[in-house]
Amino acid sequence: MATENISSASLPVRTTKQSIIHPLAPISANEIEGAVAIIKFQWPTDTDLHFKAITLQEPAKAEAVPYIEAEFHGADLPHIDRRVFCTYYLRQTDKFHEAVVNLTTQALEYNVRLGPNQHAPLDGQEILEFEKIAIEDPKVQEELKELQLPEGSSDGVDDDRRMLQAFLYMRDPANAGEADSNHYALPLSISPVICTDTKEVIRIDHLPTGKDSTVTGPRLWQQRPANEYIPELQELRTGLKPLNVVQPEGASFSITEQGTSNVVEWQKWQFRVGFNQREGMVIYDCRYDGRNLFYRMALSDMNIPYADPRQPFLRKSAFDLGDAGAGIMANDLKLGCDCLGSIHYLSATLADDKGNPLDMPNVVCIHEQDGGIGWKHTNFRTGRAAVVRNRELVVQSIITVANYEYIMAFMFNQAGEVGYEVRATGILSTQPIDDGVEVPWGTVVHPGVLATHHQHIFSLRVDPMIDGYENRLVYDEALPMPRSDFNPHGTGYYTQETVVETSGGYDLDFDKNRTFKIQNSAVKNPINGKPVAYKIHAPAFQKMLADTESFNYKRAEFADKNIYAVKYRDDELYAGGKYTNQSRGGSGVRSWAARKDSIVDEDLVLFLQFGINHIPRIEDFPIMPCEIIKISMKPVNFFERNPAIDVPPSTQAFNKSVQLSEQHRQGTVEGDVNGSGDVCCTTTSSKL
Amino acid sequence: MATENISSASLPVRTTKQSIIHPLAPISANEIEGAVAIIKFQWPTDTDLHFKAITLQEPAKAEAVPYIEAEFHGADLPHIDRRVFCTYYLRQTDKFHEAVVNLTTQALEYNVRLGPNQHAPLDGQEILEFEKIAIEDPKVQEELKELQLPEGSSDGVDDDRRMLQAFLYMRDPANAGEADSNHYALPLSISPVICTDTKEVIRIDHLPTGKDSTVTGPRLWQQRPANEYIPELQELRTGLKPLNVVQPEGASFSITEQGTSNVVEWQKWQFRVGFNQREGMVIYDCRYDGRNLFYRMALSDMNIPYADPRQPFLRKSAFDLGDAGAGIMANDLKLGCDCLGSIHYLSATLADDKGNPLDMPNVVCIHEQDGGIGWKHTNFRTGRAAVVRNRELVVQSIITVANYEYIMAFMFNQAGEVGYEVRATGILSTQPIDDGVEVPWGTVVHPGVLATHHQHIFSLRVDPMIDGYENRLVYDEALPMPRSDFNPHGTGYYTQETVVETSGGYDLDFDKNRTFKIQNSAVKNPINGKPVAYKIHAPAFQKMLADTESFNYKRAEFADKNIYAVKYRDDELYAGGKYTNQSRGGSGVRSWAARKDSIVDEDLVLFLQFGINHIPRIEDFPIMPCEIIKISMKPVNFFERNPAIDVPPSTQAFNKSVQLSEQHRQGTVEGDVNGSGDVCCTTTSSKL
Repeated sequence: MATENISSASLPVRTTKQSIIHPLAPISANEIEGAVAIIKFQWPTDTDLHFKAITLQEPAKAEAVPYIEAEFHGADLPHIDRRVFCTYYLRQTDKFHEAVVNLTTQALEYNVRLGPNQHAPLDGQEILEFEKIAIEDPKVQEELKELQLPEGSSDGVDDDRRMLQAFLYMRDPANAGEADSNHYALPLSISPVICTDTKEVIRIDHLPTGKDSTVTGPRLWQQRPANEYIPELQELRTGLKPLNVVQPEGASFSITEQGTSNVVEWQKWQFRVGFNQREGMVIYDCRYDGRNLFYRMALSDMNIPYADPRQPFLRKSAFDLGDAGAGIMANDLKLGCDCLGSIHYLSATLADDKGNPLDMPNVVCIHEQDGGIGWKHTNFRTGRAAVVRNRELVVQSIITVANYEYIMAFMFNQAGEVGYEVRATGILSTQPIDDGVEVPWGTVVHPGVLATHHQHIFSLRVDPMIDGYENRLVYDEALPMPRSDFNPHGTGYYTQETVVETSGGYDLDFDKNRTFKIQNSAVKNPINGKPVAYKIHAPAFQKMLADTESFNYKRAEFADKNIYAVKYRDDELYAGGKYTNQSRGGSGVRSWAARKDSIVDEDLVLFLQFGINHIPRIEDFPIMPCEIIKISMKPVNFFERNPAIDVPPSTQAFNKSVQLSEQHRQGTVEGDVNGSGDVCCTTTSSKL
Repeated sequence: MATENISSASLPVRTTKQSIIHPLAPISANEIEGAVAIIKFQWPTDTDLHFKAITLQEPAKAEAVPYIEAEFHGADLPHIDRRVFCTYYLRQTDKFHEAVVNLTTQALEYNVRLGPNQHAPLDGQEILEFEKIAIEDPKVQEELKELQLPEGSSDGVDDDRRMLQAFLYMRDPANAGEADSNHYALPLSISPVICTDTKEVIRIDHLPTGKDSTVTGPRLWQQRPANEYIPELQELRTGLKPLNVVQPEGASFSITEQGTSNVVEWQKWQFRVGFNQREGMVIYDCRYDGRNLFYRMALSDMNIPYADPRQPFLRKSAFDLGDAGAGIMANDLKLGCDCLGSIHYLSATLADDKGNPLDMPNVVCIHEQDGGIGWKHTNFRTGRAAVVRNRELVVQSIITVANYEYIMAFMFNQAGEVGYEVRATGILSTQPIDDGVEVPWGTVVHPGVLATHHQHIFSLRVDPMIDGYENRLVYDEALPMPRSDFNPHGTGYYTQETVVETSGGYDLDFDKNRTFKIQNSAVKNPINGKPVAYKIHAPAFQKMLADTESFNYKRAEFADKNIYAVKYRDDELYAGGKYTNQSRGGSGVRSWAARKDSIVDEDLVLFLQFGINHIPRIEDFPIMPCEIIKISMKPVNFFERNPAIDVPPSTQAFNKSVQLSEQHRQGTVEGDVNGSGDVCCTTTSSKL
């Protein structure tokens, strides 16, 4: 076993002593305090400000690009003012403000009250507060009494961020003392609606529990079985033996800490990791072997619309980033639980509702993993095999949004490929259903429990700089050749490239093998003369099902197309718009794309959509096995050959695998090892 | 490091002493010799038979099913005669025969000469022989002279299995002594055509090397750069540190050897692994927690049609299983090169062209791998996280078919899911192209080297037995609800199930989220009353591009549909038909499906297609980074809850990860470990 010391020693963590703060570095605790002081100074001293987000106001790209290029080439660094973006309410009011503080000049550059229909996300403080309100409200208590619930079994609410419609659940009465009892298995039909200003229960809805919209009042509670997930309440399976990932010499990557941001270097890759309240982890200035690839990559938005058309469920549509925040919801990752191997954790500083710095430990983990065989070929004439493994670098963050979990990871490999993987897990959002009832918009996953169909539609924002900052979007299609003297057997086919001229939404077409590429037309491959490019691999998914007149459709401005392509503008980061909570649409990527800007050899920005239509299975309860979705970007005529051809061969001397049983016919492990790559290349590997 | 002894000891390899041979066990060396003797006895003693395949004639399912059920339930085993299937030529003739030997009765039950247009696959003997013929032919030597190649640089041929059209390449003259020099980087324009009967060069084609069909005769060889892949000719990258998978207590699976077949048990899974010349590995009698899932699973066929419409390339379309064989082409897997961790290898016995047993060592490897997080949920109120990892069992085989490699693996997990993954790697099939020429049906991947577009279309045969042997195929679609009083906001949607009534070819439709399920309508889920089922996840791909009148289309009888569904018949295993070499179509799954059999609650068999349209990138040369395709089958209302909910929690005590650097804020590794699952469940994991 490697010891911690060896491995710690093996990770060169350099702290640069540069006095200036990097313009893309997340804001520090000091900067939070500085910005908050400047904002508070504008108000009477006794004003109680309720802060919603305090985050880096990223510099205009026109400022940042010269900076990172000077930095990369070791030239003098231009000066860039440091700015903080901030949203806040006057507490207990609907007076919502947006402010930008310039810390360099110590000036409040911008501070306005926002108009109607612009609402901040919920924060943890509010959620707990509204739980209390919903439970303690006398009218709610009265109705709960009518159910004659056993003692001590009532639980909190599950927040619906848009409506603050509270869904009530109860704990298993047989296990009422267990705070981690799975209350989603015991939903109640009473649903208080809370006004966020007055903080009062303004209405109590009763949920439809049949096959139609009929609502019956509170009925006597019936005994229901529990469906727990915590391990001590399971009969755990046996026979699983440990599988450890051991890196005796530590990790192959290095981290350079620059204040609040970190530069990662690994196997010719180099990039900067940032973190903020809304997007969580952000990848900046991503290069391979010194060549520009991506200026910025981050999850931009996510929408989860539900299928139940009945009141009050028809309002159920969540934007987990805009309504809550992938940063503020990030898990504190635990060693040995969330990853295997030698792990480096990144922590972050966000802000709480009072404007105080909030420590967010271990919100990102960085580690390597084995991705299986990277490439292999055996010369059947000599029997010699050449094989390398595909080592991957994983930059991962996990968020909890009430019932659901998302495990998100950027993955880099030795063939110059970048992947972005999302694993959806956690607990289904459930509602009560009468015995014996089936509905076509959901699945009964437990007695009396309905899990409604819903879509998960993600949007990854990619700001490319493929060998430079002026790129174009093109797509290739593979098309059959018409029969002719040139194609006498009707077997020929060819590819045709189309340039995407203007900003807009574009779709995949698998029947044509339509493949989108980010291309730099000014840089040609020295061997085949083709423009350098990266192609986008994204899985097929069903787009937004709600009709085009619906609020669901209008608000999720990314959910109808595989790809949105726009010309870069500062401050256009979030596909669903800046404020998704009760948004009305018109402020997101569909609207930006409608400008019909020319995007040929311009500063191109892409929003890549992917997702799943989650038709619940009973196997998805009480916690669903991870559903995995992955998109990747791969070089196309960007290099001069397979960039992983220089990866050292996969050998037993390096990998130290173990042979089980005596059936193995190639002699002992030791016999195989001669320290060179030849270990894999000695015998005829095919009987050809 | 775990030592080999510990791990060997830890794999209980039981050898059952049962005298009778299992009816699904591959044939043994003795059985091969016995069958060959019986066949030879039919012919004059001096007859030279050229054997093509000697393999198990699987028992009729009507016989096999009662046997495996009796076996599973410990009842008396019915007797089943043991049969061998055999194909052979009278050597040096076109007299191709098919025979079935009953070893139990020692009778030759069937022995016929096959009609025209039925040809055997090539075998290794022939390939080497035809290489020699092509090179040594005086006319070829003459033409080669005209090229004025440097000494010692001419190389063998790359076989085109259909035409025996030989493509010539040369070794790098600067490295002529290196037998593993990558000759695919130096293709020649001379292409001899060999007659398989007379074994003569009947014609020498000259390849078109321009943008049209024009053929110039042999031209003086021009100096070209090499493009080698072997490690000693690379400047290898540095900085990659070892990553070892260590299983200190050995593997979690057990193997029971029953003569030539092996029963694998792992984490509630149980199945039998077979192996044959054509399909390679076969999974039989696959059960989870004692419940029937799949009677038989194996790769059925594969087609690789090329896009170049010109002579002679328009005939280039390979069936790597039917024209060669996934079993006979299987790599001898090497410890530490092809997998990490604790590996168990299976070996097999096939036959050579003389009918002698052929030892095939380590053609299948079985090992566990970590599949990342299996499921996770954090209760944001208590901060307690529950998390398990997804351990997978991998049953893998790797084949080399001349230039290409395929890495194939069945993957089983703890959530009752089965995956089948194919990784395409190896070397592109190349041809010469003139300098400065671009063609839309291929990519220049090296000076003077064209890699033509081509499709890889795979067909996985799945013979299900979901809770019994009578299953149906259905599909769900997610459809928007029309606006109405019931759906006032246009947000509602529902799923609709359609039963597939008759055998045929069926397609996915991602715009409808169309999802196919294998269903047992007679067995209902005890909780929600839905029929138990397994759903099929398959990625979108472009179907066969060649037109419907082309030989390519007619021969690849599976390449036009995502799924073919048929009613089971004995001997219908290969989607492209029994003899794909120069086949004319009409003998594969499209023809069987045309019977329009009712397949509702019948003995259903599915052929699942998946693939890639490979538009070569320069990054795919000299060896392409693995292109990964995966399909999976997942339970839908088959269990009563997440079947992986009983997996022990992921803990540091079990996983022994290592923390890098001092930045980590959760204390030391030791501090985290308390031996229980609580290590992951102690602090607030979200700042909600």
